[in-house]
Amino acid sequence: MASKVRLFVDHPLGEGQLVPLTREQANYLFAVMRLPVGTVLSLINSRDGEWDAEIAEGNKRGGVLACQAQTKPLQMPPDLWLLFAPIKKARTDFIVEKAAEMGAAKIMPVLTEFTNSDRVRQDKLQAHALEATEQCGGTYVPEVSEVQKLDSVLRDWPEGRQLMFCDEARVGERAGLSGSAGPWAILIGPEGGFSEAERIRLAALPCSTVVSLGPRILRADTAAVAALTMWQMALGDWG
Amino acid sequence: MASKVRLFVDHPLGEGQLVPLTREQANYLFAVMRLPVGTVLSLINSRDGEWDAEIAEGNKRGGVLACQAQTKPLQMPPDLWLLFAPIKKARTDFIVEKAAEMGAAKIMPVLTEFTNSDRVRQDKLQAHALEATEQCGGTYVPEVSEVQKLDSVLRDWPEGRQLMFCDEARVGERAGLSGSAGPWAILIGPEGGFSEAERIRLAALPCSTVVSLGPRILRADTAAVAALTMWQMALGDWG
Repeated sequence: MASKVRLFVDHPLGEGQLVPLTREQANYLFAVMRLPVGTVLSLINSRDGEWDAEIAEGNKRGGVLACQAQTKPLQMPPDLWLLFAPIKKARTDFIVEKAAEMGAAKIMPVLTEFTNSDRVRQDKLQAHALEATEQCGGTYVPEVSEVQKLDSVLRDWPEGRQLMFCDEARVGERAGLSGSAGPWAILIGPEGGFSEAERIRLAALPCSTVVSLGPRILRADTAAVAALTMWQMALGDWG
Repeated sequence: MASKVRLFVDHPLGEGQLVPLTREQANYLFAVMRLPVGTVLSLINSRDGEWDAEIAEGNKRGGVLACQAQTKPLQMPPDLWLLFAPIKKARTDFIVEKAAEMGAAKIMPVLTEFTNSDRVRQDKLQAHALEATEQCGGTYVPEVSEVQKLDSVLRDWPEGRQLMFCDEARVGERAGLSGSAGPWAILIGPEGGFSEAERIRLAALPCSTVVSLGPRILRADTAAVAALTMWQMALGDWG
């Protein structure tokens, strides 16, 4: 089954809209994929849903697509952020990919006391989020922010956003999430968990709900998917 | 923090019990880790919980450990099987690792009509399950079965075991699981989903509960973790 090529563009999509290609996109479509003029692709831009667009002209250095018709409306994720402490590269990539698939709106790498990796390439992670969205047929690409200290993120915490604090030290307690709808964030700790000072501070925040993720210790990437599932079922767009 | 080495042994564990090492284990402990006699390790065997054991003697070819005291009781997972269609190697490994972490009792690779990989090394997957259990401090290593045709598995389906059939075609329907406690299995399809004939057959089985995993298309490895979370919350040992 030859499936349509799917492309993210930073350009408005609409009937008759002409969409210029970047050099990189043109190279991919015409040098790598060798698509002829007239081929129909799928375009998304995180704003206007998914559109069919035909290749009007192009070569390895540039080109133009012509929008035809909307094939999917925009499907916004709930207003959910995923905060996580970056771990080894493969697992960090994995967390970003999973967050995009599971419907997080924003992905925020944060440095905690025990975070053992601070070499986080925002551009690479953003590309992962984009690829995961394209793969899974989504129409919204979550934003990946630059890595920040957890401290600073908490200091500037937005009024009214609730925090699901997944505390490894609660392993074995009853898992479950209660809370009210609205803006939320999930926080997943690094391998080795949070420091005692961080745990006390996080649990004491008025915005914070402390949550156990069952009776087993989970790796951070597993914990991210489990927490996203739990949140989506209880308060998101799964239930 | 130097953490204790954790080892799986196929031998009874109990007070004063002497545990012989395989050549491979001895090589790891004495040639790779260079542990001296007298070092205390953690042992598990999927039956007797976790025990402290001291190295009584050893060289690169063999050795003996002496059990001291139980440090954790056996924590059996619920009677849950995870059936999945093997995908690309890295993601298949990942599914097995996640199933072990999330508390599946048995992991069964199955071939469906659209399964595009049948080169499954049972011994390698079993080693992944073991490693994930050791990493996460578990005391029970789920069994990974040899790859089987989904057809045959369904033909010999055990009386009384319920099936959570995660049907990609139900994307967008309300996610949730209802059912009664007891033996269960989760079935995750391959990339490309199930064939129409498989879907009709699966949905019609008396043991089967058809489940949606939310409004987004998930990769098979994401779907596995999400389904395990959903089951553990509703019917397993998380709730």
